[in-house]
Amino acid sequence: MAQTPKRTERVAILTGGGDAPGLNAVLRAFVRVSHHHGIEVYGSEDGFEGLVQRNRMVKLTPGSVRGILARGGSILGCSNRANPFAYPTGTESDPYEDRTQDVVERLRSHGIDILVLVGGDGTMDIGHRLSQQHKVPVVGIPKTIDNDLGATDVTFGFDTAVTTATWAIDTLHSTAEAHDRIMIVEVMGRYAGWIALHSGMAGGADIILLPERPYDIERVATKIRQRAQQGSTFSIVVVGEGAYPKGTPSTEASPVDGHLPKLQGAAATLAQHLGAQVPHEIRTTVLGHLQRGGSPSPADRILGTRFGAAAADLCAKGITQRMVSIRNEQIVDVALKEAVQNPKRVTDSEPLIATAKAIGIEFG
Amino acid sequence: MAQTPKRTERVAILTGGGDAPGLNAVLRAFVRVSHHHGIEVYGSEDGFEGLVQRNRMVKLTPGSVRGILARGGSILGCSNRANPFAYPTGTESDPYEDRTQDVVERLRSHGIDILVLVGGDGTMDIGHRLSQQHKVPVVGIPKTIDNDLGATDVTFGFDTAVTTATWAIDTLHSTAEAHDRIMIVEVMGRYAGWIALHSGMAGGADIILLPERPYDIERVATKIRQRAQQGSTFSIVVVGEGAYPKGTPSTEASPVDGHLPKLQGAAATLAQHLGAQVPHEIRTTVLGHLQRGGSPSPADRILGTRFGAAAADLCAKGITQRMVSIRNEQIVDVALKEAVQNPKRVTDSEPLIATAKAIGIEFG
Amino acid sequence: MAQTPKRTERVAILTGGGDAPGLNAVLRAFVRVSHHHGIEVYGSEDGFEGLVQRNRMVKLTPGSVRGILARGGSILGCSNRANPFAYPTGTESDPYEDRTQDVVERLRSHGIDILVLVGGDGTMDIGHRLSQQHKVPVVGIPKTIDNDLGATDVTFGFDTAVTTATWAIDTLHSTAEAHDRIMIVEVMGRYAGWIALHSGMAGGADIILLPERPYDIERVATKIRQRAQQGSTFSIVVVGEGAYPKGTPSTEASPVDGHLPKLQGAAATLAQHLGAQVPHEIRTTVLGHLQRGGSPSPADRILGTRFGAAAADLCAKGITQRMVSIRNEQIVDVALKEAVQNPKRVTDSEPLIATAKAIGIEFG
Amino acid sequence: MAQTPKRTERVAILTGGGDAPGLNAVLRAFVRVSHHHGIEVYGSEDGFEGLVQRNRMVKLTPGSVRGILARGGSILGCSNRANPFAYPTGTESDPYEDRTQDVVERLRSHGIDILVLVGGDGTMDIGHRLSQQHKVPVVGIPKTIDNDLGATDVTFGFDTAVTTATWAIDTLHSTAEAHDRIMIVEVMGRYAGWIALHSGMAGGADIILLPERPYDIERVATKIRQRAQQGSTFSIVVVGEGAYPKGTPSTEASPVDGHLPKLQGAAATLAQHLGAQVPHEIRTTVLGHLQRGGSPSPADRILGTRFGAAAADLCAKGITQRMVSIRNEQIVDVALKEAVQNPKRVTDSEPLIATAKAIGIEFG
Repeated sequence: MAQTPKRTERVAILTGGGDAPGLNAVLRAFVRVSHHHGIEVYGSEDGFEGLVQRNRMVKLTPGSVRGILARGGSILGCSNRANPFAYPTGTESDPYEDRTQDVVERLRSHGIDILVLVGGDGTMDIGHRLSQQHKVPVVGIPKTIDNDLGATDVTFGFDTAVTTATWAIDTLHSTAEAHDRIMIVEVMGRYAGWIALHSGMAGGADIILLPERPYDIERVATKIRQRAQQGSTFSIVVVGEGAYPKGTPSTEASPVDGHLPKLQGAAATLAQHLGAQVPHEIRTTVLGHLQRGGSPSPADRILGTRFGAAAADLCAKGITQRMVSIRNEQIVDVALKEAVQNPKRVTDSEPLIATAKAIGIEFG
Repeated sequence: MAQTPKRTERVAILTGGGDAPGLNAVLRAFVRVSHHHGIEVYGSEDGFEGLVQRNRMVKLTPGSVRGILARGGSILGCSNRANPFAYPTGTESDPYEDRTQDVVERLRSHGIDILVLVGGDGTMDIGHRLSQQHKVPVVGIPKTIDNDLGATDVTFGFDTAVTTATWAIDTLHSTAEAHDRIMIVEVMGRYAGWIALHSGMAGGADIILLPERPYDIERVATKIRQRAQQGSTFSIVVVGEGAYPKGTPSTEASPVDGHLPKLQGAAATLAQHLGAQVPHEIRTTVLGHLQRGGSPSPADRILGTRFGAAAADLCAKGITQRMVSIRNEQIVDVALKEAVQNPKRVTDSEPLIATAKAIGIEFG
Repeated sequence: MAQTPKRTERVAILTGGGDAPGLNAVLRAFVRVSHHHGIEVYGSEDGFEGLVQRNRMVKLTPGSVRGILARGGSILGCSNRANPFAYPTGTESDPYEDRTQDVVERLRSHGIDILVLVGGDGTMDIGHRLSQQHKVPVVGIPKTIDNDLGATDVTFGFDTAVTTATWAIDTLHSTAEAHDRIMIVEVMGRYAGWIALHSGMAGGADIILLPERPYDIERVATKIRQRAQQGSTFSIVVVGEGAYPKGTPSTEASPVDGHLPKLQGAAATLAQHLGAQVPHEIRTTVLGHLQRGGSPSPADRILGTRFGAAAADLCAKGITQRMVSIRNEQIVDVALKEAVQNPKRVTDSEPLIATAKAIGIEFG
Repeated sequence: MAQTPKRTERVAILTGGGDAPGLNAVLRAFVRVSHHHGIEVYGSEDGFEGLVQRNRMVKLTPGSVRGILARGGSILGCSNRANPFAYPTGTESDPYEDRTQDVVERLRSHGIDILVLVGGDGTMDIGHRLSQQHKVPVVGIPKTIDNDLGATDVTFGFDTAVTTATWAIDTLHSTAEAHDRIMIVEVMGRYAGWIALHSGMAGGADIILLPERPYDIERVATKIRQRAQQGSTFSIVVVGEGAYPKGTPSTEASPVDGHLPKLQGAAATLAQHLGAQVPHEIRTTVLGHLQRGGSPSPADRILGTRFGAAAADLCAKGITQRMVSIRNEQIVDVALKEAVQNPKRVTDSEPLIATAKAIGIEFG
């Protein structure tokens, strides 16, 4: 925990990586509370882009963040690509270059005391390296819609994603039932199955397949047959995008026979395997970006507000190299480097798994 | 218009083809109004399945249809496959057989005076042939989520599908904007672009591609470039599932190079072509069955109620070989055979097209 | 139909009266299509306020109306009070004064060729008088959430209000059923019962009470008792805010015994009367402003877009003293003075009433 | 913690008090997991009514609870009135009688080993007394939409109520802004302000008034005036139904001048006081039962599922006189009598209050 000697006068904030519902709640609270502390705020547009390029820093006042609480996306814009340690050059021979000097120069020229990063492990890693290599004082705010960061109980965006996925499962239920079909719903989660687990339980799925371990197609088929014997001639299967069948490599694309690595996702792979096992019509739905968008849920707006406010408090106190986090409903802060370690996966000891199995959900 | 001599005492109803939001509103009103007229109602489960197979006819009373108005699907079940003129045998050598005698026998044994069919052109065609070849008195209720029947101004389910598609476009907007992306949304409509046109206009799409005519990829790319020049570095493209680029065969799968006829839909095809023309990241979302499900919109519940009530009135009067329909907000009825002709397509003279072009929407 | 001799170069637009979902769709389309025609647009803030006061006229460009399609309210603001013919003076002795000269002067100083009014009968009446007394060329766009204008088949905002009211009825259903209660839902409609009729039918109401004629409390109670005898121990009653029982004066407050004229609305009055007749617990819900707000439905966004585009076309052609309107799905225009006459009420010959009665809905 | 000697073979469950979103999730999980443990389940209709009256016990199987997860209300029905210790007699002279012997007899005749109560403090108090006075083995599941039980971190129904209230605030925002109005939204919470606090923060309220302490009308007016000076000519006020101004008695009706004790709620009282202080138009919306209804949120479905499953596990182990509860995301169980003590109120030390104040929310 580093202590900056002088009073914090001016900070910069950016939203890195993919967008998540609640980013605007973070920005609104951060700007309001910073203003309350007498700190000026600048925003870097499109993630680190605004710190690498010129004229992409905008001043953020309470007026700038008015009316944004209920809106998805980020008023600052996001970027998955703008990494100042490996910035695209546009040339093929030498595709990436180090642009961190530009970042440091931009921060200096704007008189920025602390850089606040809202992002996932990629963004936090950049922040950690900037603080190590260039002495940039950094405060982090965790963002991952998959909720797979070990350093915090929960992240904003996850509740909204689960809500959207649950709505989708609800919506598909009536068609599944009317037509005696297998409905496969692919939800986000390349490495962690939290969205699949929560939306599957909330949506009344019969089968949930997680990316954490390969599934046994025979068990899936058996569950479907058992249901048919009991008079339920349809089934709902929720599958995380990184889930794959036993005996195949664990890439997210799960190529079954070496073909189609880009076109075939988890739902298509499952449909192909399952089609050989059960007589039902099978339909797949891939929710994709629908889970990132839309107005954030109340819980995500509140969590984003708490994170934004807490980060502004850290800035006011001059506490840096820390990331805000929530533990047992209390806002705390953890070492920035901790954030880039310890992913949170769905393990067999997860209590929700036991409950799900007790009510009859099959995990393959 | 045939007039049955005796008073109608008992009727059967079925929901054929794919499900659509509002089917339960139809059934509820049909049963209630038939009850009001002193007519008994039987329901055939899973479309024509219940008339081909034994023990699949259920008595429907006002109690049977309680609490179903707000629910998607059909309490009777639907079937796209159970065609009594070509019923699957399960044998490879002779895959289909005529089972219309079973239907006629089932109707006779249950004492059914009139058969009421809720369905699209396939179902109406079966009804027409049953009435021609077997003297079955038939009343039709039009159902097509694509709203592509010339015989009626509008069908139930369409408004709900447009509402869901518009919600999806709204949801994708924030991510498109935050990341400067092209978001392609594929909506239903294999031959008719009504859902694409309505949801595209309601969702603020920049480009709408209809199945009615091949699009010019160059015009699409030009629109995106123009927007970028004016400072809008993202674009929303709504594409009907049957839309295809100029110079390719007009199948809905639109195979570009002869491969992947099943895997590549309209959105993927467009993404592939567009990727060669513009520098943006492109993301596709295929809404699929989400558009069929969910609670029907108020307008669809009311339209379904009106259709169901009107069909019961026709039954009470003994008027058959007619399909109910809506014209200028008035419920009317048309000859059953008319229903299987005259599809309704989006033409260049459609007033909405002119309005859409005037506000700057590009149709490729 | 007056024809202005010169080309239209600059127009002003305002949104008068109460807000309605779809106003921003109107403004967006009007500005875009005007821009397309080479016409400059100014907006008057807060209805006529911006034409009476100084410095309340804002230039509207395509950029000004970006991103507003899905938003409720009006970016220009509305006002129910700013009537230039009777503008509040703030003094008690002489509370109103004529400020129409200020309006005329403001229009002249801004070089406005045509004044476009989005509003209900009050706003259209002001427009008609401005055109008569001050030769102001006026184009009207109808706005009434109650859908009670005879001059147009439908107005934007109505579908959204019905959707919200139907959602509320759906939501109250489960509690009504769980607790064997009478749930009374008061919806908008002081003089016309269209929202009550449509949301009542869509929400599965058992009883609908319209402002068009006094209801018989005994008939309401009888319906509830009949339902109880048939095993449905709960009932849903939808009541328009202007509905009142037989034998009481027809004001919307419906004071029963001379007391509480302001506090007691239609739902409270009904609850009081009904409480003496049936043993059930009764709960009331007054939806109020919830019906005006929120994101407009797709149908309202499209209708608002069509109206805004059509008004811009009239301006471009120099056609004034007309109001745009929709007839059998075609956009037309009617004389402005017609708009302030012929309210549209729910009459006994309304086809929906017959359908509603046939499915068992009681109208008291 | 009492240990029943024999294996649990048959249990009864009831849903007492007011309904809450998630009750059906509880019932579904309880029945499924009991079935898994080989335990038969009976349901008592309408709370304790089914145990006092004859023929109101229904057998619940996995088939009985199919398709109910997403539905509001309770398939068993609820009752606020059926207290077996003070059961309504229907006579005025002696209005209540003790019917606990009937409950005991009904449990014995059905062979019930354990009685499972889903309810709030009133229901738990009855359960505690039944176990004390009649040796009835009881397991409790906490239910209070207000989230005011000290014995559990959170209860199901709360998240849905907050979601509905937040939607309402979002919806009213556009009208408030378009008309420069004060919008007062009254939410549930007679003694605890959790719904007001959460929905107010999530909805972007400017002022939140809690029932826990009287508010200062002058501070409320000052906040509104400050906002007006900064250009925000509208304000959103969220008020818990039990909130009242300083200097008035703390009943929830908050009669200002001795009149209208039943008609005037918290919103009306505030509007009356505020009207004398600020020049704005003021509008009130009372959400009431809308907060109890509708499809439960995903979080409430999951929490209800966890509670129901945990209660079935307790039954299987023969552990009674305990109530299930959640602490730091772990399901635990607490003594039944603890549940009827220690209400959870919003105190000044609540972290959300500090965050809310830091972003500028006024608490009066």
